[in-house]
Amino acid sequence: MRVFTEERDWGKFHDPKSLILALVGEVGELAELFQWLPADDAVTRVRNEPLRGRVGEELADVLIYMVRLADVLEIDLADAALRKLQGSTTRFPADEVRGQAPEKA
Amino acid sequence: MRVFTEERDWGKFHDPKSLILALVGEVGELAELFQWLPADDAVTRVRNEPLRGRVGEELADVLIYMVRLADVLEIDLADAALRKLQGSTTRFPADEVRGQAPEKA
Amino acid sequence: MRVFTEERDWGKFHDPKSLILALVGEVGELAELFQWLPADDAVTRVRNEPLRGRVGEELADVLIYMVRLADVLEIDLADAALRKLQGSTTRFPADEVRGQAPEKA
Amino acid sequence: MRVFTEERDWGKFHDPKSLILALVGEVGELAELFQWLPADDAVTRVRNEPLRGRVGEELADVLIYMVRLADVLEIDLADAALRKLQGSTTRFPADEVRGQAPEKA
Repeated sequence: MRVFTEERDWGKFHDPKSLILALVGEVGELAELFQWLPADDAVTRVRNEPLRGRVGEELADVLIYMVRLADVLEIDLADAALRKLQGSTTRFPADEVRGQAPEKA
Repeated sequence: MRVFTEERDWGKFHDPKSLILALVGEVGELAELFQWLPADDAVTRVRNEPLRGRVGEELADVLIYMVRLADVLEIDLADAALRKLQGSTTRFPADEVRGQAPEKA
Repeated sequence: MRVFTEERDWGKFHDPKSLILALVGEVGELAELFQWLPADDAVTRVRNEPLRGRVGEELADVLIYMVRLADVLEIDLADAALRKLQGSTTRFPADEVRGQAPEKA
Repeated sequence: MRVFTEERDWGKFHDPKSLILALVGEVGELAELFQWLPADDAVTRVRNEPLRGRVGEELADVLIYMVRLADVLEIDLADAALRKLQGSTTRFPADEVRGQAPEKA
């Protein structure tokens, strides 16, 4: 993504606020694909094309802007995610929270 | 994330629409950290704590829900992103688009 | 909202991109209140406090930033909504689309 | 919006989680219109067509789903917004916060 951006001289557009708006745009496209699907049938419906391919594309777009944003901010995304998940493992002991809707932390 | 979810029996909450809403919640928290920062000073401000750590945490949360959503949908996120980026490389030839704001595709 | 902003000299923060990020933040808080609720029980659960009050507050926050954004852009929000709804009435004839999930337009 | 929905028998799609996803979709479209605009030139650019009309349409779509969501939840949106704004007036005394970026409340 960094090479792609530099080859097009698009770095000047990629300040963090603009990238977050782009990310929001892609999350919005992802949401639109699911908005009217029955909640309990969504996984099944996404097994079939053309929906499957479209969902993959929107997930890809979200990830691409995430990675670009992390790059611009010089944040190691994988490291941040691993540490966050370790923190959640401690904060939500399995024995205490099993089966209950997680409180928004 | 899959193990974390299974240990807590939270899989029943992780239908795609619910996960997208959770993703939206985390994107919202990310947006809040940047909303009033000057656009041209955001990168610099995020170099310092405590903002840097908080941004890392919110990016992590977004990624974690992305990965979980892809897992539930059995979509290979890295593969989807690589293919999308290859498609964009073709669709936006560097010689034609250099330096111009990309049209929303 | 305009008076509130001027009294605090906050107008300088209210460029459109910043306001949209603020709007995204509030939509995220709204999403978090619903993310783990069963889809078919959400209306009932929101009948009771404290959830009812919190949902009202988040809806209010979204509306407030919407109104402020429209004000900054000098767009008549009510007029725009009425015209959009009239357009949708024409574009989706009731006899043709009755009972079918609306295609994303 | 209520009449529009009933005439099409679309009420069955309008559970709160689905409506929030639809709202997210429209917020995403709004974000896309602004993502690559220079922050300090966005107001000026939106003065001209065709951008002005498109922004009006996306703002309208967000408002329409907001109103529909409030209707489904039987929440008085205008009342909620007025009360929230009154609360903010108290919580952020003008003399204390003038000219400073508001802390996320």
